Amino acid sequence: MKLLVKNAWILTMNEKMEQFQNGYMLVDGNTISEVGGMDSLPEDIRYDQCIDARGAILIPGMVNTHTHIGMIPFRSLGDDYPDRLHRFLFPLENECMNEQLAYTSGRYAIAEMQLAGVTTFFDMYYFEQQLAIAAEEMHGRAILAETVLDSITVDVEEPMGGLQYAERFMPKWQGHDRIHASIAPHAPYSTTIEVLQQADALSQKYHVPWMIHVSEMEFEMKKFREERNQTPIEFLAEIGVLSPRLVAVHCIHLSDHDIELLKKYDVKVAHCIGANTKSAKGVARIQDLLAAGVEVGLGTDGPSSGNTLDLFAQMRLFGNFHKTFLQDRSAFPAREIVRLATLGGARVLGLQEQIGSIEAGKQADFILVETDSVNMFPIFDPYSALVYSAHAGNVRDVFIAGKQVVAEKKLVHFELAQLRQELIQAIQDCGFKRKALKAL
Amino acid sequence: MKLLVKNAWILTMNEKMEQFQNGYMLVDGNTISEVGGMDSLPEDIRYDQCIDARGAILIPGMVNTHTHIGMIPFRSLGDDYPDRLHRFLFPLENECMNEQLAYTSGRYAIAEMQLAGVTTFFDMYYFEQQLAIAAEEMHGRAILAETVLDSITVDVEEPMGGLQYAERFMPKWQGHDRIHASIAPHAPYSTTIEVLQQADALSQKYHVPWMIHVSEMEFEMKKFREERNQTPIEFLAEIGVLSPRLVAVHCIHLSDHDIELLKKYDVKVAHCIGANTKSAKGVARIQDLLAAGVEVGLGTDGPSSGNTLDLFAQMRLFGNFHKTFLQDRSAFPAREIVRLATLGGARVLGLQEQIGSIEAGKQADFILVETDSVNMFPIFDPYSALVYSAHAGNVRDVFIAGKQVVAEKKLVHFELAQLRQELIQAIQDCGFKRKALKAL
Ligand SMILES: [Zn+2]
Ligand SMILES: [Zn+2]
Repeated sequence: MKLLVKNAWILTMNEKMEQFQNGYMLVDGNTISEVGGMDSLPEDIRYDQCIDARGAILIPGMVNTHTHIGMIPFRSLGDDYPDRLHRFLFPLENECMNEQLAYTSGRYAIAEMQLAGVTTFFDMYYFEQQLAIAAEEMHGRAILAETVLDSITVDVEEPMGGLQYAERFMPKWQGHDRIHASIAPHAPYSTTIEVLQQADALSQKYHVPWMIHVSEMEFEMKKFREERNQTPIEFLAEIGVLSPRLVAVHCIHLSDHDIELLKKYDVKVAHCIGANTKSAKGVARIQDLLAAGVEVGLGTDGPSSGNTLDLFAQMRLFGNFHKTFLQDRSAFPAREIVRLATLGGARVLGLQEQIGSIEAGKQADFILVETDSVNMFPIFDPYSALVYSAHAGNVRDVFIAGKQVVAEKKLVHFELAQLRQELIQAIQDCGFKRKALKAL
Repeated sequence: MKLLVKNAWILTMNEKMEQFQNGYMLVDGNTISEVGGMDSLPEDIRYDQCIDARGAILIPGMVNTHTHIGMIPFRSLGDDYPDRLHRFLFPLENECMNEQLAYTSGRYAIAEMQLAGVTTFFDMYYFEQQLAIAAEEMHGRAILAETVLDSITVDVEEPMGGLQYAERFMPKWQGHDRIHASIAPHAPYSTTIEVLQQADALSQKYHVPWMIHVSEMEFEMKKFREERNQTPIEFLAEIGVLSPRLVAVHCIHLSDHDIELLKKYDVKVAHCIGANTKSAKGVARIQDLLAAGVEVGLGTDGPSSGNTLDLFAQMRLFGNFHKTFLQDRSAFPAREIVRLATLGGARVLGLQEQIGSIEAGKQADFILVETDSVNMFPIFDPYSALVYSAHAGNVRDVFIAGKQVVAEKKLVHFELAQLRQELIQAIQDCGFKRKALKAL
């Protein structure tokens, strides 16, 4: 099955950042086989299906490097409360979260990401086996990481039970081409040295990245300073778990030495600018990380923190925040921000051989962003248009491994209204809504 | 002609911030006549037309307090260049901007705003007579202010010629119910004391607000400090032009004394968070202004600075920036941000008797934001959903003075593709595109 996409403004995001303002791409099965300008389209090219992009911008599918897809029910709940974690999130999660709620939330979240052009994500939550099934059913590409925490959680019966969950979960998905199972100790302060070392060992054993929230909270920094006279990153280095397979999430508070350590061990960073700034935590030193050679990707965090799971909102916030933070309007040109949202994310997840750019031999994960809507004209710089003009609603078509999952702004294989209805049912069945409204 | 809107989640934005989760609104001609819950809908209510909102959020039409609608051609041009003003904007404006380009850009910009739920705007540019005609034709509500600058500009043949332009322009629109003509000295450093005092006098004579960029630039602050040992606001106070009719745009660099002066003279502030932060200029002291009792509205600035003309992007940036700036995640609850985008803006423009809230007797300027799209669920807090989940593409229906201008996400009386084609033609006719690409 060969698919020809023609008349697209192709941003390849390859090493040379090549673009074809009027380009074509040939897909063979799940793989990109040719990319070029329309003027070099072979006359005798053969294909089974043809899509006329009609001037849409074609980029690699976006990579959301940090999500909690089970948390859609929490969206818009207590956004402005200083104590929202303890007032809403933890009690409601403990009382209501169950397999069905996580699964239906996961399906809804994956639909949201696909409709917004996110084709790959790295998730940290509970019931990750159900979430992996949801991702598989919806033809997503994902790494699903089971959370480990020093308390009883919604899917395990003893503290740190996520470790055993992960030990059962991770072998199940070995060898799958799109779905990978992993482990995510919640944070350095909420797990143990043994758990962190086990997580690292499991990640090595199953050849998948693992993930942890780190250097995010003021109290976290203080605790490690007081108890160990270290930063959390220094602590992780000391216990031997820094590696190219670790995705360090947030990293808001970094010392120069932390940055050296992250570079030395080739640790990856998932940067969630929207969640970090909505919660007034601060702006991570991304320019310094990139200058040091550390790989960085963009993440939304969960829908209760970042609210939407699309990377358009994140790219715009990224541009404005980092330019202001650095007091330099020329910092982070738009093309660099688009790179972080695509190839950068792919590298963070260790998937750069398969995805992240439009190049022959890579998986056909790509999206078409239409330029017919009022906000998408004129376009002198397509990267600027993506970062500063576009919103998630401009995504028209989405392909993952050569299979179309979104066509003309609608899911191809699912009905959004039905996914929402299933989620509403799960929310009602567990009493979530009633309890949430009571807590407000 | 009576219109009934039913089954809407109505956020009235009135003094009590009343909302009706399942509400109705009756419009009589151009005026709101009744608002209430569906449970109190009179059985014998009479109407000519009925719109079922199907759960959409109904809010007052948004007010964009600072735009340059003639500048659509500049969108995405040189966003990341440190010298973009002098490299792109000024030369291209001088060489190419003409009546037809301003007019077609204005029509396109007004279409963009209406499609995004902005029903009222305050513009500062050249050829404002043509822009006023554009706004009138498109049934917009607007204040159009002719720029005055100390150089020859595209529509006047001598420095400060905008003053004479405004003197001819302002009487033409007196008595119009939606279109108001005004004057906008570019900035305190780029005009004269006489121009500023004349602008103030014209504003008083024609009962319209006037507008100026102020306390925006580092060099501006330095210049006034060095030459007069004053802030720009202190200078404006000294020459006697601070009044409730003045809209001070940007106000990024304010001293405590400046804030006292703005309050003392009841000056209004147009806050353009997106433009201010994308250009790395900084974050204005909006919390302090509001605490002092100064009225504040949101603005996008021109499409070359803020890129899009919708206030959804601005609201989100506002929330994240001010929470981070104040290091307080509970600062500026979402309902306050929505208030700034609606009633706040109406007050800044002196139009609060006519628009800005959903109340009987006010003009029927309102919008419906659909909740069917994937990003608009769940909604525990409709204000949070508007600020942190919604994008311009979620706006479904828009009414100005009782007349529908957007239905089901499409312009009612115009074809967007045709508006774009007219603009493309004007861009080509004046050589804009060729020169722009040459400058890149
Ligand atoms: Zn997280
Ligand atoms: Zn401006």
